[in-house]
Amino acid sequence: MNRRQFNFSLVSAAGALAFDRAAFAAQPKLRVNGARLNEHLKALSEFGKNPQGGVSRVAYSEADARGREYVMSLMRAAGLEVAIDAAGNLTGRRQAANNDDSLRPILFGSHIDSVPEGGNYDGDVGSLGAIEVAQTLAEHNVPMRHPIEVVIFQNEEGGLIGSRAMDGELGEKELDLVSRSGKTIREGIKFIGGDPAKLSTVKRTKGSIAAYLELHIEQGGILEAEKIDIGIVEGIVGINWWDVTIEGFANHAGTTAMNNRQDALLAGAKFIEAVNRVVRSEPGRQVGTVGRIQAWPGAPNVIPGKVILSLELRDLDARKIDLLYQKIRAAAAEIAQTSRVTFDFKEINVNIPAPTDERIRNLIGESAKELGLTTKVMPSGAGHDAQDMARLGPVGMIFIPSIGGISHSPREFSRPKDIENGANVLLGALLGVDKDV
Amino acid sequence: MNRRQFNFSLVSAAGALAFDRAAFAAQPKLRVNGARLNEHLKALSEFGKNPQGGVSRVAYSEADARGREYVMSLMRAAGLEVAIDAAGNLTGRRQAANNDDSLRPILFGSHIDSVPEGGNYDGDVGSLGAIEVAQTLAEHNVPMRHPIEVVIFQNEEGGLIGSRAMDGELGEKELDLVSRSGKTIREGIKFIGGDPAKLSTVKRTKGSIAAYLELHIEQGGILEAEKIDIGIVEGIVGINWWDVTIEGFANHAGTTAMNNRQDALLAGAKFIEAVNRVVRSEPGRQVGTVGRIQAWPGAPNVIPGKVILSLELRDLDARKIDLLYQKIRAAAAEIAQTSRVTFDFKEINVNIPAPTDERIRNLIGESAKELGLTTKVMPSGAGHDAQDMARLGPVGMIFIPSIGGISHSPREFSRPKDIENGANVLLGALLGVDKDV
Repeated sequence: MNRRQFNFSLVSAAGALAFDRAAFAAQPKLRVNGARLNEHLKALSEFGKNPQGGVSRVAYSEADARGREYVMSLMRAAGLEVAIDAAGNLTGRRQAANNDDSLRPILFGSHIDSVPEGGNYDGDVGSLGAIEVAQTLAEHNVPMRHPIEVVIFQNEEGGLIGSRAMDGELGEKELDLVSRSGKTIREGIKFIGGDPAKLSTVKRTKGSIAAYLELHIEQGGILEAEKIDIGIVEGIVGINWWDVTIEGFANHAGTTAMNNRQDALLAGAKFIEAVNRVVRSEPGRQVGTVGRIQAWPGAPNVIPGKVILSLELRDLDARKIDLLYQKIRAAAAEIAQTSRVTFDFKEINVNIPAPTDERIRNLIGESAKELGLTTKVMPSGAGHDAQDMARLGPVGMIFIPSIGGISHSPREFSRPKDIENGANVLLGALLGVDKDV
Repeated sequence: MNRRQFNFSLVSAAGALAFDRAAFAAQPKLRVNGARLNEHLKALSEFGKNPQGGVSRVAYSEADARGREYVMSLMRAAGLEVAIDAAGNLTGRRQAANNDDSLRPILFGSHIDSVPEGGNYDGDVGSLGAIEVAQTLAEHNVPMRHPIEVVIFQNEEGGLIGSRAMDGELGEKELDLVSRSGKTIREGIKFIGGDPAKLSTVKRTKGSIAAYLELHIEQGGILEAEKIDIGIVEGIVGINWWDVTIEGFANHAGTTAMNNRQDALLAGAKFIEAVNRVVRSEPGRQVGTVGRIQAWPGAPNVIPGKVILSLELRDLDARKIDLLYQKIRAAAAEIAQTSRVTFDFKEINVNIPAPTDERIRNLIGESAKELGLTTKVMPSGAGHDAQDMARLGPVGMIFIPSIGGISHSPREFSRPKDIENGANVLLGALLGVDKDV
């Protein structure tokens, strides 16, 4: 344990807690080591680094495995007791003062897997920020009423797999889906040291956690545009993802007259336009995206007979998502008729909208205020492991600005100072939760 | 050499030729063995057979290599002197009567490579039909004035590679393009026994062939719909193929507002619709197809930043193709502006329209008439190796009906009787060309 900058009393006996907390209030305020945190982020960026910038560290890849090893080394250096749970999540526990087990643990963390050709901030800032907070607490021997657990969830980008396992939501069928690594989720969990046969041991019950806190980059451009330091998340949007299969008829591109085609890709093009039109036709902040497409047989001289594409809808209100989906289904039915193709919608994943906890929002606000930072209450358009943790207990999320609002891209960037600010707000909020919740 | 059904005199001495031709006219007409031809087609269909029907025998694949071995065995059984040229084309030569080398060779053949998930008739009927004709000539020891060469061109579906090599059109840069097999064309040529360093030996000069004949399935539905036995091809459409790259900006699908996106796939969808609209807006039989598409990074939760798709235009008139292309470019420029993306068009392949030879069309017509078959003069909407051979000498093409007009599909089908008819028309036309050209 590193005890540089040792400013606080060592809690050495039961009953010393109240005294120390009073002493703590009189001390110079506790702060994370921002330079160290940013160095750690730089070191993590090497795992899966792309020549053109950013990383491809998809869950269960070799880069993911190596990145996790590095993260575990940081967790150990922060004095945490590290374990890999059966779902493959990394957990790092610190006991409460005097090994008191009477209070439920406070969880905080994020993820280190990325999308293909992603950036170095999404997930990484919250993960290494959480570890930095734990290291700061350890270095200063800050006594805590609750046990704390840093959690690095596995495969956030592939559908919040690790946090859903903690909810008991990860089913047998889902384990057989192929992830972006090429491995099934089942194979992936084994690859990173979990045990898919023992997922039930990972499940936590509602009320079993005191709170969950997550620091994250905004991934949108609002904080930067409005020159605000910290976003206080009011809730995480629901995300519904379907795979849509369009079947027409594959035929020769030279001999099949234009009016005699059943072109699945032309129908797919009309569908992509319809999704955009329907989503934009309603007032609000909802979004809809077709991000993936494949056409068969996929030759320039063959009319595509089959297309599979992804459809994703997001909003803070589940009823809005359902309304959009019904309208998109109706548009697809029309396209099916005019283009002589069929549409099939297969639900792949549903994350219901998750509000954050009001008390925790206030504690985040107080923490930011104490640091002299400006704040804004805002929704999260991105899904986060926090939404699954919201089913187990109260959650809070802290956003820092994303430059240009760019995310899931090699050009994703957050300023070192904002990263440090975010980690300090997390530290303050954690101490607040420890005191009040 | 198999001499069953031996009906004709053996040409054993110079000068016997004229006599034998007269004797031949008095004999029962020469016919191919239709049952054997259809059996050979069935046997060939095993190489690259798909569980759901049809074949995937893309050029340079293992299935292609095995299929070629089978075809070479048939060529040898037909008494042909078999060779693999430096481009990887299979050639089977039969000397003229009395080993007379004064006349240029008559070439006839087709190809046995398929599109991915293709059928068992495109190319195969003409290839095995040509070998059946050669075997019939051999079995009956029919004397020919010209040397004849059965040619099985390699990689027709990937851009007429083998026949373009014979034109001297296959350039160094093109050899490095990756074919559907995953191999570059250079690697593929080596794989099938050619030598890409010696392509110049394959090149034939204009006027070096007496004629080229090709039997093929129509691949459209006209002959079947009009109950016509044989199509006499008036010309082969020009085919232009471009790869179109659309660049937008990859960003997070949850945090990027709908009006703040540079979605390359949405722009691609608009482009696919525009291609269809432009091609249909002109009168005529032209066709335009987007058969291949890929979006990057290709995740459901990322707005696509880049799309590459294929654009193919076909018509008998090269000016019509250019007109359509200009209109499509204009439509793309509009989409680029409204969608904040860029379009880049890269010409991949151009096959100029190729008319067939009038004398040969007449000989095909006479051959069909003698067999009691009905005929229709029609364009070929599909590209064929014959269009490259048209640059070396006069060409003719014979079509047989495609049931349902289906091609480049496992459901591609031609009736055994039509296949036999086609081979008999080829045989008669070949004898006519041998006599007249």
